[in-house]
Amino acid sequence: MTMTVASRIESVREWLANNDIDALLVPHEDEFLGEYVPAHNERLLWLTGFTGSAGAAIVCRDTAAMFVDGRYTVQVTKQVPSELFEYRHLIDEPPVSWITNSLPKGSKIAIDPRMHSANWLESTTSLLSPDFQLVMIDTPIDNLWEDRPVPKPSDVYLMPLEHSGQSSTDKRLAASQVLTNTRTDCALLTSLDSVCWLLNIRGSDIARLPVVLCHAILYSEGNLDLFLDPAVLPSDFHKHVGEGIKVLHPNELISTLSSLNSKRVALDPATSNAWFKLQLQNTGADVVNSNDPTLMLKAAKNATEIKGMKACHIRDGLAMTSFLHWLDKEIELGHLHNEAVLSDKLKSFRQRDPSLRDLSFDTISAAGGNAAMCHYNHENEPTPGQLTMNSLYLVDSGGQYLDGTTDITRTVAVGNPTDEMKHQFTLVLKGHISVAQARFPKGTRGYQIDTLARQFLWAEGFDYDHGTGHGVGHFLNVHEGPQSISKRQIDVPLVEGMVLSNEPGYYRANAFGIRIENLELVVEAKSQGDLSLLSFESLTRCPIDKRAIEVGMLTDNELAWLNDYHEKVYNELKPSLEGEVLDWLQKATSPLNR
Amino acid sequence: MTMTVASRIESVREWLANNDIDALLVPHEDEFLGEYVPAHNERLLWLTGFTGSAGAAIVCRDTAAMFVDGRYTVQVTKQVPSELFEYRHLIDEPPVSWITNSLPKGSKIAIDPRMHSANWLESTTSLLSPDFQLVMIDTPIDNLWEDRPVPKPSDVYLMPLEHSGQSSTDKRLAASQVLTNTRTDCALLTSLDSVCWLLNIRGSDIARLPVVLCHAILYSEGNLDLFLDPAVLPSDFHKHVGEGIKVLHPNELISTLSSLNSKRVALDPATSNAWFKLQLQNTGADVVNSNDPTLMLKAAKNATEIKGMKACHIRDGLAMTSFLHWLDKEIELGHLHNEAVLSDKLKSFRQRDPSLRDLSFDTISAAGGNAAMCHYNHENEPTPGQLTMNSLYLVDSGGQYLDGTTDITRTVAVGNPTDEMKHQFTLVLKGHISVAQARFPKGTRGYQIDTLARQFLWAEGFDYDHGTGHGVGHFLNVHEGPQSISKRQIDVPLVEGMVLSNEPGYYRANAFGIRIENLELVVEAKSQGDLSLLSFESLTRCPIDKRAIEVGMLTDNELAWLNDYHEKVYNELKPSLEGEVLDWLQKATSPLNR
Repeated sequence: MTMTVASRIESVREWLANNDIDALLVPHEDEFLGEYVPAHNERLLWLTGFTGSAGAAIVCRDTAAMFVDGRYTVQVTKQVPSELFEYRHLIDEPPVSWITNSLPKGSKIAIDPRMHSANWLESTTSLLSPDFQLVMIDTPIDNLWEDRPVPKPSDVYLMPLEHSGQSSTDKRLAASQVLTNTRTDCALLTSLDSVCWLLNIRGSDIARLPVVLCHAILYSEGNLDLFLDPAVLPSDFHKHVGEGIKVLHPNELISTLSSLNSKRVALDPATSNAWFKLQLQNTGADVVNSNDPTLMLKAAKNATEIKGMKACHIRDGLAMTSFLHWLDKEIELGHLHNEAVLSDKLKSFRQRDPSLRDLSFDTISAAGGNAAMCHYNHENEPTPGQLTMNSLYLVDSGGQYLDGTTDITRTVAVGNPTDEMKHQFTLVLKGHISVAQARFPKGTRGYQIDTLARQFLWAEGFDYDHGTGHGVGHFLNVHEGPQSISKRQIDVPLVEGMVLSNEPGYYRANAFGIRIENLELVVEAKSQGDLSLLSFESLTRCPIDKRAIEVGMLTDNELAWLNDYHEKVYNELKPSLEGEVLDWLQKATSPLNR
Repeated sequence: MTMTVASRIESVREWLANNDIDALLVPHEDEFLGEYVPAHNERLLWLTGFTGSAGAAIVCRDTAAMFVDGRYTVQVTKQVPSELFEYRHLIDEPPVSWITNSLPKGSKIAIDPRMHSANWLESTTSLLSPDFQLVMIDTPIDNLWEDRPVPKPSDVYLMPLEHSGQSSTDKRLAASQVLTNTRTDCALLTSLDSVCWLLNIRGSDIARLPVVLCHAILYSEGNLDLFLDPAVLPSDFHKHVGEGIKVLHPNELISTLSSLNSKRVALDPATSNAWFKLQLQNTGADVVNSNDPTLMLKAAKNATEIKGMKACHIRDGLAMTSFLHWLDKEIELGHLHNEAVLSDKLKSFRQRDPSLRDLSFDTISAAGGNAAMCHYNHENEPTPGQLTMNSLYLVDSGGQYLDGTTDITRTVAVGNPTDEMKHQFTLVLKGHISVAQARFPKGTRGYQIDTLARQFLWAEGFDYDHGTGHGVGHFLNVHEGPQSISKRQIDVPLVEGMVLSNEPGYYRANAFGIRIENLELVVEAKSQGDLSLLSFESLTRCPIDKRAIEVGMLTDNELAWLNDYHEKVYNELKPSLEGEVLDWLQKATSPLNR
């Protein structure tokens, strides 16, 4: 691998010399700026050998640097040759800081503006100016990458109204109203989930995210230009999406953007790549920075989407229950499997459901101390970890179903966890319950909820270094904003129909990791007071391991929540289970008492 | 009054005509942009008759509009003639919106950039451009105002090290380090509290805020130019402040600013008036937007300041205790006083302390339904309200002492409050206790704490429409940031030594109002966990009225907090009390049981 990487670096350096450039910046992102990247766009992997889901590299004439965040500091040393790259922290010393610290003034740094957000380009330009020159290029990697995978043709799935709940025509009308309100003529849609939601289509162009790779322009009358090879579309596509859709080949994108030269064009600088903004500005369009017009519409699920989310969570809960029952039995038999076997077994239970299209992300199957790494992936390890007795096993997983997306974490007692493990587990559970039971006025932001999940850990000097909850799409991104529950100052009110995860945790390095995650639906709550209230309704249907709870730490109220939740889980899963799995569930959900 | 206002408006209209201008904007603020304004700068009051502490007016050739916030919607109708002004909501339709909605395009609007922050001017310019023209003027009011009060000469008080705890030289060195870190040559200091803190001086130029009206420039070596008439300085001023202080007459300000033409000058655009920024830009200085360099230094009180804050809170608590004892006795005797009598009586108890220099704000003395208005001031009413039996009386007050600033709210049972009043009081108390008991990691922001105070009200559909806590200065502003506890996304970590109020409330329009306010000191907390923790230490020493509590709603833990707090209050006030006041305090602080 080192030889391969060395020769690739060499080819980039040749390109630098030929083009009189000092450095090339290669991020993990592709032009869609999403979390997941199709194989043919894994340019950072090709260049460095790094398989992580976030990172960047800079190749200079004589040096090179690799940037990864805290999740990948060990992994990077195993995958990226240290004789070729220095390692840097992506957050503490991002590429821009490294450039100003390490490169001589006057250096020319090449970037492909497709692979960066418009916001990034703006702030980077101002940070580097006037000492460094940013040179806009088409990435040279696509030419240097000899065996670059050919993208498979998109497989466009037309999502029936029975699952989407609203026609594309209606969605486009609603989204175009946002444009009218902001007095813009059209909006560039570059988020894959936005385009697919708007057209009620899904695809399998990327693993884990069921979308079609495409771009679109939405006009203020509700018409839409879709940039996608027309050859891949099913014959009933136009009937499905309704009137007003023009399908254009991606090679018509530039000329179409040019035709917007006198228009006010809305563009979301956080999610759109900078190339679009530059292109529009060059043609003389009036580019208006504004949120993607589908953002809030898509986030608040409609009644059909909610029904689907509830239904798939019951089926997902059946798979989880079957897995947890199997796991308990195996442990009882002394079969202490490794993380890969467990992950595969869980997947096989999910796959029994014919509506499962994919997992919603790579399963985190983490035994013992491995669970202390929040984003652990056994596939990045030389060998997967093995269960040991008297420990905790953490499994964070989910499915992409035709009617919804799931995401669940359970932390399971393997034998008898220590008192300390149970203590920390119970602190996390108390935080989870506090969010699950929260009632709050309309207009409340996620950052106002976050502390409820942390307060019990905080009181004893603990915390977790991640958000409490992320938004979740409907048969779309498992991480889909704009809503969130975190310390970050995200100015988005929670509204009815939004789905968020509720996943406090605790991580003790090299010892154990705990996370308890349900998805929560935002619903209207009854209020006898002055204000309209919202609350959460848990969607996830799977027992929380009572064997890991120190019951004396729960208040009566918390205990009642747990028993009530378990009763719901039992009642809703029971009809589809029988025999020893049902017996196991009954025991797992029976009331916990002091 | 209407006649007077009419003739004043007429004189402004004459000025508009002579200067070919369409409208003049007159805000409440003066050039110091603070909360309190000296009498000679009460331009809005002169023009409109409005005595409120926030607002603005626009006078056009034929029309005029008066802008006030929710606190003053009733008051404005009583003070500002409706035949001369239309009333508008300061927040919902601020002057800029009114201009774009009501004035013809091309209108010329005059503003004095001294009376607006640099941030305000920047956003207003961009909102009005290109349809309206902002014309920068020196306010014509100072010439039109015939009997404008002559400012009395500043009375500069040299604060001894025994109360400030740090010499001006040391403070200036620390603040200049902030300038060095941001590579600026100097900082313009326009906040009165910043200059006075830095020089360890106080004054009485404004009611309620013990400062001297002045400006300053701090240089990166720690030297400082003070713009203040040298004639008012005590003879030992230079000995007091140490070396490096140049005192310049205010009429030397413009020439001094001009001399900064080649410098990098830090200016806080949130707290500095726009005139300074324009002036500096005109001279060719490189104006760097940055926080006032004293902000975080001033907010974290030193050991001496903390000692003073604790000491003056005990003395303030003695005054409050004497007042509350007197009040109970009067009620028992059937003497149901009015709000003015109560406010004056409380003031007289505070004035027994020779170190009291002023109140820290106008006392809110609010009986019955008046307390539902958070910023009620009986002096703005035709007649003050009267206590009635079986109600709640709210009193929010504080003092400026030589060793610190206090701010306390107590809500007192008059007779037997209704069950509903007690229920709401207890919800507010639970929120207060939740903040008072909070333990949180270093780095936590105030907006992460806010929800703890609201959660119990929220759960039943209630809330309060103000922040939970504001920062408090040391013998300075009673509202002094940057720290706060509120829903607003203020990105300032709480650090040791900061003082904040903890004042959740509940307001039922026309019926009753509840607020329970202590000041809290941020202190390091013991942690057996992974993280360093902070917590609050209550500074206020005054009983919370047990007669208004529905004890069954408190958890054991909350009850223990209350009894523990009361024990502290009793023990610390006892040595200075005797006779029936001490007996009253003993009863008021005795343990509450179920």
